[in-house]
Amino acid sequence: MSGIFVTFEGIEGCGKSTQLNMLANWLRANGKDVIVTREPGGTDLGEKIRNLLLEGNKNDIFSIRAEILLFEASRAQHVDEKILPAIKSGKFVLCDRFFDSTVVYQGVARAIDPHIVQFLNEFALSGCVPTMTVFPNISVAESFRRIALENGSRDRIEQEDESFFEKIRDGYLELAKGNARFFMVDGADNAEIIHEKIRNEFAKRFFKN
Amino acid sequence: MSGIFVTFEGIEGCGKSTQLNMLANWLRANGKDVIVTREPGGTDLGEKIRNLLLEGNKNDIFSIRAEILLFEASRAQHVDEKILPAIKSGKFVLCDRFFDSTVVYQGVARAIDPHIVQFLNEFALSGCVPTMTVFPNISVAESFRRIALENGSRDRIEQEDESFFEKIRDGYLELAKGNARFFMVDGADNAEIIHEKIRNEFAKRFFKN
Repeated sequence: MSGIFVTFEGIEGCGKSTQLNMLANWLRANGKDVIVTREPGGTDLGEKIRNLLLEGNKNDIFSIRAEILLFEASRAQHVDEKILPAIKSGKFVLCDRFFDSTVVYQGVARAIDPHIVQFLNEFALSGCVPTMTVFPNISVAESFRRIALENGSRDRIEQEDESFFEKIRDGYLELAKGNARFFMVDGADNAEIIHEKIRNEFAKRFFKN
Repeated sequence: MSGIFVTFEGIEGCGKSTQLNMLANWLRANGKDVIVTREPGGTDLGEKIRNLLLEGNKNDIFSIRAEILLFEASRAQHVDEKILPAIKSGKFVLCDRFFDSTVVYQGVARAIDPHIVQFLNEFALSGCVPTMTVFPNISVAESFRRIALENGSRDRIEQEDESFFEKIRDGYLELAKGNARFFMVDGADNAEIIHEKIRNEFAKRFFKN
């Protein structure tokens, strides 16, 4: 028996966490055993690494090579300790951000050589590729509007400027293009409408017959 | 102006930290600007990563991929924030453990594919290869005898068994063989005798004018 592994990707404020939880609730209501997790983090070690990555200020001296290596360390631990065992026992794993985030944040926006990003991702994943990736797409202007509404303090990466997030958004659009794993939805829609689209796509992909 | 970067490698209890400090004192007495540092660690971020790596118990779930990625993250930060700037300003950098430790601990003893270890090391180093590596060689029996004398608590990696440390020692001997960067000394000798040998070798390599 083997479970299903779905990741949620997109820029800040796109609604991926909301949609992840709505899908989790729907799956649970349908009797599925669901694990909700996130990156960086998801394990004790991973959450400690998350703190190292997100604390502080965008002007701190932070090696971009150290940054990607920390994301991958959190990921390797996540795969070995939590995701693979859950998939193997037939569970549904829903993860808020995964390796596509590294492709766009560290690869596209921080301009690390894509071959290096791919090598590091493959090493950390050890074959654990998601079955489906949900991508609510919004504009950077909408992202900034929603982050401002939340009115909380921004973590080290959220402090980057608009051009950084434009690169991220373009990176996701490029990744999603022609990639059957991705399911892109218009993130500007009402949350219930988006959820219905995701649910329908999910049922079509995994519950057909 | 460009400084000199010397690393100290070997199994636990081989005397590398003692020798590093003796060499640092000698260099300072000769008017050199010396930086003493260590891995994992050496920077604020690196010391936090060090804690993640060394705390806990050898039976904890710790992905071996996460482990090597954390060592490399600490290394990349160390190179960018501390080692390269120091070398560029003409300082002498003496570092307790560096990338050779990853070659033997993660590559040889944890059996990670040597090509992967090399790729990760090259990425973290970004060209910052040591000028000289001092390797005091002792037997594993002697290592265990000295660790027992210290009588402190052992970190997660020091808790490994004798066969693990035999692999480490063999790995170092293999690395040092025919590698001009390495200077191997008999670590069973008296500390003053070893220091004199290292000092002489150092003077021969760097102060011959």
